This record gives sequence, C-alpha cells and structure tokens, in this order.
Amino acid sequence: MPSDTLTPDAAARESGASSVVIVGAGFAGLTLARQLSRRHAVTLLDRRNYHLFQPLLYQVVVGAISPGEIGVAVRGQLRHRPNVRSLEAEVFDFDAVGRILNCGAAGGAAFSLTYDTLVVATGMQDHYFGHDDWAVHAPALKTLGGGLRMRARLLGALEAAEAAAARGAPSEEVERLMSVVVVGGGPTGVELAGAIAELSRTAMAGEFRYLDPDDLRIELVEGEPALLNGFAPRLQKHALRGLERLGVNVRLGTMVRAVDADGVTLAGPDGEMRRAAAVVFWAAGVRPTELAGAVAAAYGITPERDGRLAVDGRLALAGHPEVHVLGDIAAYVDPRHGRLPGVAPVAKQQGAFVARLLDDRTRAPFRYRDWGRMAVIGRFDAVAEILGIRLSGRLAWLVWALAHIAYLVGFDRKLRVMVSWGWRFVLGRYAARLITEAR
Amino acid sequence: MPSDTLTPDAAARESGASSVVIVGAGFAGLTLARQLSRRHAVTLLDRRNYHLFQPLLYQVVVGAISPGEIGVAVRGQLRHRPNVRSLEAEVFDFDAVGRILNCGAAGGAAFSLTYDTLVVATGMQDHYFGHDDWAVHAPALKTLGGGLRMRARLLGALEAAEAAAARGAPSEEVERLMSVVVVGGGPTGVELAGAIAELSRTAMAGEFRYLDPDDLRIELVEGEPALLNGFAPRLQKHALRGLERLGVNVRLGTMVRAVDADGVTLAGPDGEMRRAAAVVFWAAGVRPTELAGAVAAAYGITPERDGRLAVDGRLALAGHPEVHVLGDIAAYVDPRHGRLPGVAPVAKQQGAFVARLLDDRTRAPFRYRDWGRMAVIGRFDAVAEILGIRLSGRLAWLVWALAHIAYLVGFDRKLRVMVSWGWRFVLGRYAARLITEAR
Repeated sequence: MPSDTLTPDAAARESGASSVVIVGAGFAGLTLARQLSRRHAVTLLDRRNYHLFQPLLYQVVVGAISPGEIGVAVRGQLRHRPNVRSLEAEVFDFDAVGRILNCGAAGGAAFSLTYDTLVVATGMQDHYFGHDDWAVHAPALKTLGGGLRMRARLLGALEAAEAAAARGAPSEEVERLMSVVVVGGGPTGVELAGAIAELSRTAMAGEFRYLDPDDLRIELVEGEPALLNGFAPRLQKHALRGLERLGVNVRLGTMVRAVDADGVTLAGPDGEMRRAAAVVFWAAGVRPTELAGAVAAAYGITPERDGRLAVDGRLALAGHPEVHVLGDIAAYVDPRHGRLPGVAPVAKQQGAFVARLLDDRTRAPFRYRDWGRMAVIGRFDAVAEILGIRLSGRLAWLVWALAHIAYLVGFDRKLRVMVSWGWRFVLGRYAARLITEAR
Repeated sequence: MPSDTLTPDAAARESGASSVVIVGAGFAGLTLARQLSRRHAVTLLDRRNYHLFQPLLYQVVVGAISPGEIGVAVRGQLRHRPNVRSLEAEVFDFDAVGRILNCGAAGGAAFSLTYDTLVVATGMQDHYFGHDDWAVHAPALKTLGGGLRMRARLLGALEAAEAAAARGAPSEEVERLMSVVVVGGGPTGVELAGAIAELSRTAMAGEFRYLDPDDLRIELVEGEPALLNGFAPRLQKHALRGLERLGVNVRLGTMVRAVDADGVTLAGPDGEMRRAAAVVFWAAGVRPTELAGAVAAAYGITPERDGRLAVDGRLALAGHPEVHVLGDIAAYVDPRHGRLPGVAPVAKQQGAFVARLLDDRTRAPFRYRDWGRMAVIGRFDAVAEILGIRLSGRLAWLVWALAHIAYLVGFDRKLRVMVSWGWRFVLGRYAARLITEAR
C-alpha cells in the first residue's frame, strides 16, 4: 500500500493552527488533547480505541468490575473538541529532521503524519527482567486483555479444582490448582493479592461443594524487605498485617528464580523453595514501551538506565523543544519531589501542564503537586499518605474509594462502579465473574 | 488420564436422594437447578462458568452494555442450594443402559457421572445451512465471545474507515468499511440492525472528523417477504417502517448466495447483486448443539428434521421417562399453542415444570403460558403482542424495557443495566464501546 501523508485539514491550515501530534491516549495524552485550545490542530493516536483507568484494572481480575466500567472510548471523550482528531494507529518510527511520524492505521494501511509539536506519552509495558519466557505462565496487569486473561486463569483454576476434588483427584493436584502466587509487593501486587483473598474468602463462600475457597493459598512475593516501597514504615506494616489477616502469605526479601507451567521457584531468607501453583501473576516490574527507544534513537538522546527519557522543565527533550515526553516514560526530576514516579496523577498534571505551555498560559517549569499515595488492602482497609498525613484502615479506604470514583471518566461510569462496589463491599458479591477468554 | 466416576456424595446417598444431572445452565437448566427440592442430589454441568441473558446479547455488540451485565456466574446462583453442585465440564456421550455420562472437566481430566434422572438443555448454536466457511466472515450472535468479536469488528471498521478517509483513501475502500450487512430478519436481526443504526446516528454523532457516521450503510436481509415472522402483519409493517426511518435498508425476499472477506452476494426480487461490506453479521439460523445428536443416538430416537428432539407431555423422551429434554432443543407440541418456539420464556417454564414434576407437585402434562412476544426497533420504539394485545411504539418499548429488567438475574445487574440504558436512551451515550478482541 502507498504511504499517504496526513496533514492538518484545510480549515485548520488556513486558520494557521499548529499541528500537535499526541501518541498515547492514557492519562497524560487524553488530558492534553482535551485541554488544548482550538489554536491547535490536534491528532491523538493510540493502538487501542479506549482510554483505560488502569488503577482499577486489578478489580477486573477478581471479577469485581467490568471492562466497560474502567475503559472509555477515546472518540467519545473528544466529541466536543472539533480541533482534535482521534485515530486508532500504531507508530513505527520518527523522522526528526522532516518532523514526520510513520504509522500503521487500524485496517493495516501505512500513513505518515507531519507535526509542529510532538508529544509522546505511551506509558509502560511489563518487564520480566530478561525472562520473557515467563510471560506466558505469569501474565502481567498492564492491558485490559491481560486483565481478562488473568480473570479467566484465576476463576478457571478454581473451577478445575472443584472438578478435581469432586472426582477424587490426588491432593497435590487440587493443592496446585488452589495455589496463587503474586510476584511484586508494590501497590499493584498488594491490591491484587488482597482482592483475590477477599474474592475467595467472602464472595465465594458457600459456592463450592468439594473444596473450601478459604483454602486458596495466596503467596505475595517481594524482593525488598518491606511491602509498598516508598510508603511510611507504619503503613507498610499495616499493609502486611492486613494482608496476613486476609490469609495472604507475604514473603519478603524473596526473589523469583524460575517460573514455568507448574509453578515458581523462590529464593528467600530460608533458602530456595519450589511452589506448585496453577495461577502466577506478575506485578514485579515495568519498562517503557518500545516506542521510547525509537524516540531516543530518532532524537539522538540516551535513555536512562531504566529506559525512561530525560526531559527538561518544559517536559521536552534536550535539543528538541518541539518534542515533549509525558507520563510514565518521562524521567523528570522535580525540584521539590525529586524524580517523579510513574503514577496517574503525575501523568495527568503533565498533560495539563503541556496544554498550558502550548497555549502560552505558563512559562514556569513543571512542578508536581503531590497529593500523596494510597493502596487498598481489602474491604474497608487501605493505607494512604495525603498531603503528609498518614491514614490507615477505614478512613484511608474511604479516601481511596472517593478519590477513585472522582477520577473515573463519566458520571455513568462513576454510578456503575458505585453500584458494583456497593454490592461488593456491603454484600460481598462480585458482579463480573465470567470466564470469557482462553486460559 | 484415568476416567473417574463421580457419584452423589455420601451424605446425599445415605439420605436416599435421587441423582439428577442437568446439562446446560441456560434458562431451562438454571431454573430447574434452583427450584428442585433437597430430595435430589443435583449436578449442573455447563461448558462455561456463567449463565447468559441471551435476549440482550445484541446490545453488547453495539457497546450499549457490558458482558458483566448479562452474564452471571452459575456458582453464585446456587450458593444457597447445598444439594446442587456446579461443574464446568463438557459432556461427550451417554450410556443409556448404565445411565452414565462421559465428560471432560475444566482442566482437561475425563470423568463419568451416574444419574437417576438426566436433563439435557444445551440450547442452540448458529447454523449456516451447509456454508460453515461463512462463519469466519459473518459471525453469529450465540455466545458472549461471539458478541465481543462482533463488537470489535463493528467498531474496528468505523475506526479503519476514519483512518482511511483521513489519508484520502479511494472512496470504494471507505464505503466498504462503512457497510454493514445483517442477515436474518427475525427478532435478533431486527434488534441488531436497529441498535447499530442508533449507535451510528445518535451515539457517534460528532465523533468523527472525516466521515459522517450517518453514512454507515446498514442492510437487513431477510428471505421471507416480511420481517418478524410470526408477528401480526401490522407489527411487521411497523418494524419495517421503524427501521427504514432509522436508515436501515431492509431487503425482503432476498437470499444470501455467498459470503466472503469482501462482502456478500445477494439474490433478491431485482436479481443478483454484490454488496462490498467490512461487517457482516449472521442472525439467520440456529440448530441444536451437537449434543442433541448424541442424545438421539444414545436413546434410540430420530431427531426432527430441524435437529430438535421430540418430547412427551412430561418433556421426556419416548421410551426413556428418566431423560428430559428442555428449552430450545426440545420439540414439544403444546395442546393450545402448537409447536413451541425456542425462546427464553418457554425454557424457563419448562425448567420450572420439571422441578414440580420431579418433586411430585404436578402430574398434568406441560402447558405453555404464552405471555406474548416482542422485539425492540430503536430508542422508545418496539413491537409487542402481550396476551393477544398488539402494541407498537413507546408503550411497547416500555413493556419491553420493564420485562427485560425484571428478567435479569440479580438486583445489582438490574440497577447497572438501568444506568446503562438511562445513559443510552436519554443521553444517547453508549457505555462499553471497547475493542478488546481481535477482529
């Protein structure tokens, strides 16, 4: 197929609009696209047709909420932004001199795009530290498709365990099916392990005839000596105790040596051990998407050791003020907060900042406004640091719930998540426990 | 693997409970399992872990509702039924003499099951009338996975069309991407075509920069001379006019000659014609699942011409009073209503009837209580025949909406569907327009 070059449409060109191309419709890219004024002819590219509210993705894995409650069609969010066009497309590479992106559209055709300003905000993918063969046995929680496959694997293992117990299979077989290992004790791993424990202990009580869902063995494996790296020690301990109360075996200072179809090999304070497990989930590491490397190569910069791209106070690449890098893949050292973490609030604030910058509403460098951090442990239990105040337990949970509902896009989504959570947290019912994917 | 034989558990055997095995957790099977008294040790088998509210499946295709709103975990529905065990399993064949089923469990192991009473209620699968090669080009609406793939194909075609129009692709290419053909003018085809028209005309208005979603060309193809076979002629005409008002091209008396990757070949009153279309949906025919053939072979009966199995007033097979066949795959001639159609109310009533029968609460033959039939056309427009009263337009729509919400399982599901519909019908917003599957 010929490679067509897309330019801003005629009306935009006549009005002298500058061409802004945004790659990635995550928190940074979507916020920017929605806030840029009509002086800019904006193109928003994403490989998917939806924006994902990733902080709640782990709840899809346990069937507590549906994909439609955390995914929202990008196109629908830009309805009242006639200066923004949304295209489902993949970006292959960049021509820094000609200011051109080469892309593949939905449907397969290749096309090119010219830009005056380029914004790259493609986020992270999972990282197995050189063991990509582990991915098939230990899926990670970065995409909706991954979350749905994890749901199928978790619920499918419980179905298989009940069938195995019913026909009197050897107890090792049932125990392997009833074993879950979550690798990584950051917020994602903690929230996932807690939610799996809640699912089996609360939601599934009384639903099995041959096995007790309380017997589901959940291991949370973390290489550091504490959970929730970066949280205050008191909150780390609260999270540890909370998970243990839910029946999660937390293994600190423990590394994963191997992952295969049968389970994992761990190396911890007590030496090496083998754990047979039908369900292994990966929440241990992320790295920038491949496109970050292509950006570095095209614009002649060296990525940081973790693959992120260093940006200046304008969130632009050194020597390329027309190229902004936002969100998780940006390595920005904030004057007050140091190097910023890859979390949604940073990405949103960076998107809003670049909108102000391009509309000449600011000249000051980017400054992160840190509201804090939080992680939920279980029903009515969370830890949070809000503006320096440390909360744990019910109050932290309430703050967590309100903050997440406030950040969801669309009032209908807020309502539906509230209905789902009402059922989940009050009645212990999980709404979306469907196995729709291959395991 | 060895084939283990599953028997009712020891407690059930001691109490003298009879073993009832139900195959299929659709409307018939789930209703029966939930209503049987504790005198029976019940095993409910299904290939999937969820019960699907199939009448609303077409709304998943247009992204109006989420899978979790119409799918419900079977296990959760049987929480308070300790005499019922639910197993995710596939049934391979039957031994009529030994009263044994041979099955494959989730996880792959083979096992056998003995029964005193067998109930087969496995429903229908799609039927391409000898053209199974059409299935890949024209997916059908029988499973949740199928519905999600259809959603990906429909929304993906619109994304591809926008990208093609943006890069100035030839108009034939854009037109093919903007063409939808729905094959089959029964309730499913009518509802699907109407919902696609609503999606493009209402929900997507203002969301595209290079194409007008109003230009989406929707053909509804029906071999008979009228839509909604079996409805009163006045309602058939109302449906036809309603769809045409929404911009659907209804082609009556038209047969499909070929389906391939590029579109369809139709033969109608005006001769043969070719229609290039990126999206072709199949709603033209169903046939009993393979298992109906296995039942016929094992119990020595000849299926009807359409593959259904004839049952007597007890909904049992001739010569095999211990084998009941329910729902869509049963061919039952009701004294008042003649041969019953394959619809959810028939299946539910048959499930409830067999529960009464096995609990000795009735000896009279099954009689269908026909409340009527309905089909929705678009926003605030439907046709319905309720107890002989013919309704069309807003009142029929209201009856349709209330009836479907009433039939949904679980109050939380009712609430979430009401929220989704509120947004959809009042504000014209579709909540779940996500492309999560391969196209």
